[in-house]
Amino acid sequence: MIIVLKPSTTEEQLNKFTNMLKNDYQVKVNKWDGVHSTVLGLIGDTTKIDIEYIDAQDIVESVKRVQEPYKKANRKFHPENSIIKINDEISIGDGSLHIMAGPCSVESEEQIVGIAKDVKASGATLLRGGAFKPRTSPYAFQGLKAEGLDLLKAARKATGLPIVTEIMRASHIDMFENVDIIQVGARNMQNFELLKELGKTNKPILLKRGLSATIEEWLMSAEYIMAGGNNNVILCERGIRTYETFTRNTLDVSAIPIIKRLSHLPVVVDPSHASGKSWLVEPLAMAAVAAGADGLIIEVHNDPPHALSDGAQSLTPEQFDGVAKNVFALKDALSKVQ
Amino acid sequence: MIIVLKPSTTEEQLNKFTNMLKNDYQVKVNKWDGVHSTVLGLIGDTTKIDIEYIDAQDIVESVKRVQEPYKKANRKFHPENSIIKINDEISIGDGSLHIMAGPCSVESEEQIVGIAKDVKASGATLLRGGAFKPRTSPYAFQGLKAEGLDLLKAARKATGLPIVTEIMRASHIDMFENVDIIQVGARNMQNFELLKELGKTNKPILLKRGLSATIEEWLMSAEYIMAGGNNNVILCERGIRTYETFTRNTLDVSAIPIIKRLSHLPVVVDPSHASGKSWLVEPLAMAAVAAGADGLIIEVHNDPPHALSDGAQSLTPEQFDGVAKNVFALKDALSKVQ
Amino acid sequence: MIIVLKPSTTEEQLNKFTNMLKNDYQVKVNKWDGVHSTVLGLIGDTTKIDIEYIDAQDIVESVKRVQEPYKKANRKFHPENSIIKINDEISIGDGSLHIMAGPCSVESEEQIVGIAKDVKASGATLLRGGAFKPRTSPYAFQGLKAEGLDLLKAARKATGLPIVTEIMRASHIDMFENVDIIQVGARNMQNFELLKELGKTNKPILLKRGLSATIEEWLMSAEYIMAGGNNNVILCERGIRTYETFTRNTLDVSAIPIIKRLSHLPVVVDPSHASGKSWLVEPLAMAAVAAGADGLIIEVHNDPPHALSDGAQSLTPEQFDGVAKNVFALKDALSKVQ
Amino acid sequence: MIIVLKPSTTEEQLNKFTNMLKNDYQVKVNKWDGVHSTVLGLIGDTTKIDIEYIDAQDIVESVKRVQEPYKKANRKFHPENSIIKINDEISIGDGSLHIMAGPCSVESEEQIVGIAKDVKASGATLLRGGAFKPRTSPYAFQGLKAEGLDLLKAARKATGLPIVTEIMRASHIDMFENVDIIQVGARNMQNFELLKELGKTNKPILLKRGLSATIEEWLMSAEYIMAGGNNNVILCERGIRTYETFTRNTLDVSAIPIIKRLSHLPVVVDPSHASGKSWLVEPLAMAAVAAGADGLIIEVHNDPPHALSDGAQSLTPEQFDGVAKNVFALKDALSKVQ
Repeated sequence: MIIVLKPSTTEEQLNKFTNMLKNDYQVKVNKWDGVHSTVLGLIGDTTKIDIEYIDAQDIVESVKRVQEPYKKANRKFHPENSIIKINDEISIGDGSLHIMAGPCSVESEEQIVGIAKDVKASGATLLRGGAFKPRTSPYAFQGLKAEGLDLLKAARKATGLPIVTEIMRASHIDMFENVDIIQVGARNMQNFELLKELGKTNKPILLKRGLSATIEEWLMSAEYIMAGGNNNVILCERGIRTYETFTRNTLDVSAIPIIKRLSHLPVVVDPSHASGKSWLVEPLAMAAVAAGADGLIIEVHNDPPHALSDGAQSLTPEQFDGVAKNVFALKDALSKVQ
Repeated sequence: MIIVLKPSTTEEQLNKFTNMLKNDYQVKVNKWDGVHSTVLGLIGDTTKIDIEYIDAQDIVESVKRVQEPYKKANRKFHPENSIIKINDEISIGDGSLHIMAGPCSVESEEQIVGIAKDVKASGATLLRGGAFKPRTSPYAFQGLKAEGLDLLKAARKATGLPIVTEIMRASHIDMFENVDIIQVGARNMQNFELLKELGKTNKPILLKRGLSATIEEWLMSAEYIMAGGNNNVILCERGIRTYETFTRNTLDVSAIPIIKRLSHLPVVVDPSHASGKSWLVEPLAMAAVAAGADGLIIEVHNDPPHALSDGAQSLTPEQFDGVAKNVFALKDALSKVQ
Repeated sequence: MIIVLKPSTTEEQLNKFTNMLKNDYQVKVNKWDGVHSTVLGLIGDTTKIDIEYIDAQDIVESVKRVQEPYKKANRKFHPENSIIKINDEISIGDGSLHIMAGPCSVESEEQIVGIAKDVKASGATLLRGGAFKPRTSPYAFQGLKAEGLDLLKAARKATGLPIVTEIMRASHIDMFENVDIIQVGARNMQNFELLKELGKTNKPILLKRGLSATIEEWLMSAEYIMAGGNNNVILCERGIRTYETFTRNTLDVSAIPIIKRLSHLPVVVDPSHASGKSWLVEPLAMAAVAAGADGLIIEVHNDPPHALSDGAQSLTPEQFDGVAKNVFALKDALSKVQ
Repeated sequence: MIIVLKPSTTEEQLNKFTNMLKNDYQVKVNKWDGVHSTVLGLIGDTTKIDIEYIDAQDIVESVKRVQEPYKKANRKFHPENSIIKINDEISIGDGSLHIMAGPCSVESEEQIVGIAKDVKASGATLLRGGAFKPRTSPYAFQGLKAEGLDLLKAARKATGLPIVTEIMRASHIDMFENVDIIQVGARNMQNFELLKELGKTNKPILLKRGLSATIEEWLMSAEYIMAGGNNNVILCERGIRTYETFTRNTLDVSAIPIIKRLSHLPVVVDPSHASGKSWLVEPLAMAAVAAGADGLIIEVHNDPPHALSDGAQSLTPEQFDGVAKNVFALKDALSKVQ
């Protein structure tokens, strides 16, 4: 951590501040004098130092972190890739490409079992489906809730596909005991109480990036889960909010290689929510795989115009089959290329 | 709601779609034919129609809402200002200006009682203070929690100031029974499960705008609380996330008159979080009051450099006294001007 | 164009407004009455109607365009892809992949000829290099200017590679007569005076997307050039400004398929400026090609740490060789896949 | 400037780099060794050092400027406020409040003279009006051009109000010789060729903030003009581009006190373009004045619904009269308050 002091700092203030740093944080403090300002360099473990606390000092002009504030999610301290085991056959982050496919909302047993069979036939290895739905409007369909979870399990039984579904509050964790991957939605990325409780489980967590979360904030949310002891975190890029209004969100494809460099956690991409338009799913899925994503999560609905939520971005099973073919062919080609 | 159909739409598709609209939503459907496209206009209550559902239809090119999707928060259906009564003396939204002041985090009885006395002497009419703290890092101070709530109540007893403090999960609502205003933080603005539970209480709720929430989304979150039966919602603009890095957030001062036009709910402004810098609090507070804010929420700490959180943006009691003087003088001058 | 009128509109106002629309714009006007509002639909050529003019009417609540405001750049009126011929061998937009490579700034004959030979050997088919440099600081190196253009021509002579270089003012157009592709930088995307003058030439123009330009604004800038009679426009996505600070800009990879759908113009991607980091160039280039880009423009410098501008994002010729190999292998694989 | 080196840096690389810094830039270099990294601190005039050049070095992990990159615009080197004299009676930045009012576009002599008389009667001290108009669409009205300048001069003659109007290309500077304040629009804020030419004049320049320009970039554009010898720069905040779509732009009211702290140049605010809606002009104007703006620039049109551009945000002379009354009353009250 590097601290630039104001030109007006007195010798006495400087000594007091320096002693505080040494005593409270067990760091060494180096100092040099510039023409207009004095600069301090802290040496040691600075992850526990609150940068805002330092910044609040009267004598401080600005502060810069040299070390990242996340530790468990940091590749520096865990150089090899994390591989998140879902079951005996499926692991995310092991170099293979996994597609999680299914409807935005679970609507009926017939619907979810039918879609599960279809997407499995096209190569999907996990089934996604919403039982508890976060909706902007209180008047919109909120999901089948517990019944939706049961229907997902029925579809898993029928197809063998592990299931991925979203949790919306900590008190539901028991209900999600039998779910294979628990999803934390973009709007809950900084619901720290939920993250802490999920940190006490050993469930794989699919942590979606918040609508306007920086990459560092996203990794800090992963750190919340990991700090509790659960290292099974899969990150999911799903588009960020920008000024562009043509798409619902803007897919930040650069997040994929950046996460790979900063962290050892796997990254999955959601081209359906990123764009909000079904015709953009294929090109964005292709881009994500070419940029190194470990997986994709794609909305598929048997009858998109009658979907109870997010129909505009859903593919039909036939469309999904085409996308999956191209995506797997690309993955195959890439494995020979690089 | 206006629906533009694709040029390729057949007569049969059109009829099927039109009948569905009439039957499922009890709306009237008007149609006119353009050169390149056919346009439908729906007449009736369209708040229950999911715009994404319509947008997902194969034959639909685009959709536009004419009516706002919020009803209870909408000024059209409630023309007079809502006045939120806190106690016999204090009501937010009645034309007077209220300042909620206090530390980011409650740290000790001495601290919170001391600050409460100081800010009261300067004209603050409510005491703010964090007991449960949402922090980006799991390693940062998370607040005194239940003990913090007790200390706030002690400060209320000592000064008579009603207390405002943040809730972070639905299961804590009982603990907040005796709090005067429950704050929902920016990161939880779309924690819909929390909003629903708060809708079942009759507590005044201070609903902060999400980091990148549109004004419509913010009003929809207010609608979640109101749909549950609790109309005591106070909106709080606290800066939005933009590309500018000089300030922590960008205060959207235009949100004040916009909310006043679209909704009947009162608006309070948080210049401390909006800027992240104590020297910006006064000019932003002045701007907010000049633009019509019903109140301000300002961080005050007896010793900002030793604050356990957000010190950089806190004022000392002496600085706060100066800000409060100018802000009240401005409010007084405005009442004569307009 | 659909116009929603305010509920308060009188019969007289409505008639006056409707007549004005019919007379001034030769459009037909359809009307229907909703419960809360009256809606008008204009039929005919509405590209000449200023949407702001309509929006300014006292009686107007809101306006929505059904037709896009661009015509010459619009795929609806030009369904087949535009192919921009650079010379007898090279055409952009014909299905092949072209890489424009070279240094941010031309620095010396030795430098530019050396790099040109290197990038040609790796498969680049065009040479990029800056002679006139837009720099944020007036104290930074501003380019070799006219001398830089001469050096680029020398490198073209030595290698046969057509040259791409940026223009910064209309009065320089004569000087650019002998350049193969004239680049308009992001900061000049809405320098309308420059666009108009370029519209009078028949030169291929590489039009970079502005830092915070919407896709529609970008296409409108292309329309400025095309309205003048020059249809040789190549669009270049180079990252947009968002709140994320890890990268210099955020590559909007979805812009590629969107432009392909809305327009017939070719799209090239600049992964160097989009990220600002050399290690991100390869994954972003791969993503761009997988999403359907017609070309790439990549910064290559013989000695990035000594580059006079933008060194941090430049590849060495050796690194570029590796990137080009993978990118062409991907393009080859894609041609078999889809 | 503080430079953090990568852990892998060798002694030889370090020495070579340090010597280069000392020789090429005449700065002193201080060094200290941390646990994971070595840090260098440069002492001396670092404004000439290109931060990207440093960042491009193989051995560099990150760089941080301690000094701002602008000098002439920097309050540190010019502590007193700059006062820009327009004529014998009017100076911007002297503590008084000036309103520049008038139509977006000059349309006829009758129109501009009439509006000039009206706004003068309401207290405006300068007349604004567009002769050359930057328009997103090539098919929209582009202004009366040279004729518009003549009409503005006629209005000046009739009222004595100095005139403010926008320039769009360097080759027009001669034509603007007789204009009192030359405006550089948001889209040309980084048209560096235009800025350089304006730097050679001694005309007051109203420099609008770019649509997505940071405060530092905006000051660097002022620096371009000042580096050429023209210190008569007035900054104009006109709203920035954010994700919010309710308003055309988002007024960044915090820019006012920030500019006042970082620079000595005066700041004027444009509430008309910031919001795009006439009913928001008054509250935003009030906010701007309360936050310390030196002036306002407001669109006024005799007949907004028939304005040839930007009608939606224009006030009628009667509306303007009401706004001006309140704004001047506020300014008067503030002068007693603070």
